[in-house]
Amino acid sequence: GGVGSRFWPASRAYLPKQFLDITGAGTSLLQQTVLRARDVVPVSNIIIVSNGQYRDLILEQLPMLDPGQLLLEPSRNNTAPSVAYTALHLKALCPEAVFAMLPADHVIQKQNVFASCLQRAFTYARDTASIVTMGITPSRPDTGYGYINYDLRPNMEGVHKVHSFKEKPNEITARSYIASGEYLWNAGIFIWSVGTILSVFEQLAPDVLRVLQENVNMFGTPHEQAYIDQVYPKTPNISVDYAILEKSENIFTIPVDLGWSDLGTWDSLYSYLDKDINNNVVLVKHKQLIDMEGNLIRSSNPDKMVVAKGLKDYIIIDDDNVLLLFPRAEEQSIKAIRNAIKDAQFL
Amino acid sequence: GGVGSRFWPASRAYLPKQFLDITGAGTSLLQQTVLRARDVVPVSNIIIVSNGQYRDLILEQLPMLDPGQLLLEPSRNNTAPSVAYTALHLKALCPEAVFAMLPADHVIQKQNVFASCLQRAFTYARDTASIVTMGITPSRPDTGYGYINYDLRPNMEGVHKVHSFKEKPNEITARSYIASGEYLWNAGIFIWSVGTILSVFEQLAPDVLRVLQENVNMFGTPHEQAYIDQVYPKTPNISVDYAILEKSENIFTIPVDLGWSDLGTWDSLYSYLDKDINNNVVLVKHKQLIDMEGNLIRSSNPDKMVVAKGLKDYIIIDDDNVLLLFPRAEEQSIKAIRNAIKDAQFL
Repeated sequence: GGVGSRFWPASRAYLPKQFLDITGAGTSLLQQTVLRARDVVPVSNIIIVSNGQYRDLILEQLPMLDPGQLLLEPSRNNTAPSVAYTALHLKALCPEAVFAMLPADHVIQKQNVFASCLQRAFTYARDTASIVTMGITPSRPDTGYGYINYDLRPNMEGVHKVHSFKEKPNEITARSYIASGEYLWNAGIFIWSVGTILSVFEQLAPDVLRVLQENVNMFGTPHEQAYIDQVYPKTPNISVDYAILEKSENIFTIPVDLGWSDLGTWDSLYSYLDKDINNNVVLVKHKQLIDMEGNLIRSSNPDKMVVAKGLKDYIIIDDDNVLLLFPRAEEQSIKAIRNAIKDAQFL
Repeated sequence: GGVGSRFWPASRAYLPKQFLDITGAGTSLLQQTVLRARDVVPVSNIIIVSNGQYRDLILEQLPMLDPGQLLLEPSRNNTAPSVAYTALHLKALCPEAVFAMLPADHVIQKQNVFASCLQRAFTYARDTASIVTMGITPSRPDTGYGYINYDLRPNMEGVHKVHSFKEKPNEITARSYIASGEYLWNAGIFIWSVGTILSVFEQLAPDVLRVLQENVNMFGTPHEQAYIDQVYPKTPNISVDYAILEKSENIFTIPVDLGWSDLGTWDSLYSYLDKDINNNVVLVKHKQLIDMEGNLIRSSNPDKMVVAKGLKDYIIIDDDNVLLLFPRAEEQSIKAIRNAIKDAQFL
């Protein structure tokens, strides 16, 4: 997960999106992600990779985890070093391991579909020593997502060869992707074995590995954290997409409809959630709404009553010391407003 | 002051308007009222008459008062019993006293004018044994106020005979009042001596006095509160306007422009306060307002930031566990919404 600017003011620097119950489900996105994984693997096989500043928050939200199941990054160096660190850690514990990278700040409605798809991906990744990704069957020409161009012919059990990964397209390109039927949304869910991903790193991003492998004997020992704190900040700041995926040949995808969203914006949260009869998404328990239509209403205070009249297509977010009232269609300008705020108590 | 429904959700049953810093001045309306009186009389001569439930709140807001300066009513029996009780209490302490009744939930901008007018009223009430009221020179045909019809010819020092008191008029009547020049707003500020008001009560509302005078020896003793707790609830529920003022002959008024408002509604608060360049009244310190016009913005949290765009003529009130977003022109329907709420935590 990120640094907490997308769902501001609900998300804050000290409380990014993945730690929020942003959907009103009663659990945070991180908790939902762990619950999903727990249907496929034992809790003891779940590892949380995160910036070290969120350690206490993670253990508070996931009391079933042992502190040893947290891999804490001392600096923000993007996803390639994260993946490499995780693979090296797992290599010390269990060199035969196959693992999945699951972003902790997305939503997935179809839990059963996810679980069976993940199981198939584990099997395929283990049996073929390849990289597997879940490819989300797209429902609209969304310009906010990356796309996967794939071979329509399945080679085995519905697994398809990936031709290439595409950055977020413009509107026209997105429409052509959807029309062709040869594109899927890239949800950032990858499955691979420790051996596979380390050999791909060796081949395509050896500089990342070189920094982390200065002393490989440290992984899996009580000295691992101190070692990582020392070497990790020296890794190149680079995404796994750029370092590995876009250059790799041996990638496969399982097209699947997960009811997935990355919840990138307030508007995408509005789209994702159930509406009342007037198309309002109301995430507060107590309300008196008159002539209200198409609004998203949320408060960090579970006991807050919202009394409102005559608003159309507004985002109404009451969060601790910030109240946001903004037209839903203009939410992209919220980011600039947030970034212009100097006073740290509001960030 | 009242029971806290007019400025809901800022005012609550436990915190009526008079205890609120509703104008953003840094002091409550009660505190402002005491500060005004203190310019004319010593603090030790100030008495607060209130329902007993607000005792602790009053002493908290007015730490310079001795608890003995509070007259606490055990029941809500309207203003005639209040005035009679106050007069009987003062009679025991100082039978020659002249006193003013000052509503604690109004605003007065022109403090100096008020102080000199009050001094003149004290002198006139003492010297002539009559009832004196401050009559507010009206600035518009307001249908929310009662009016005083008075004799334009001053009899002495700008004091005028009152012909009659008028209930809140309709629009046409209010316009005729203003056009005639013979009407003032009734601010509910009355000045009289203990002897004068008690003899008027004896003459026009003897039943009120009879109940309270069951044992006159109790006033001014340590037993006064216990005695009042016992007899006060038996007094007739009647206003001093109806019981005394509308029937009395011997009433005079001093026409005066005090910059007065009874702040009866959110809209009257909006009218009263200073506007920014876009006609917003902004009572929060931290804000980012874009295309906002004619709004009233308030939060009970002094550190709350309000980020808003595109609202026109709205009341935006964030108060503890209630958020109110309502068109200013329709604020009269807020009362019905409040009254329909069952859950006491919001009232």
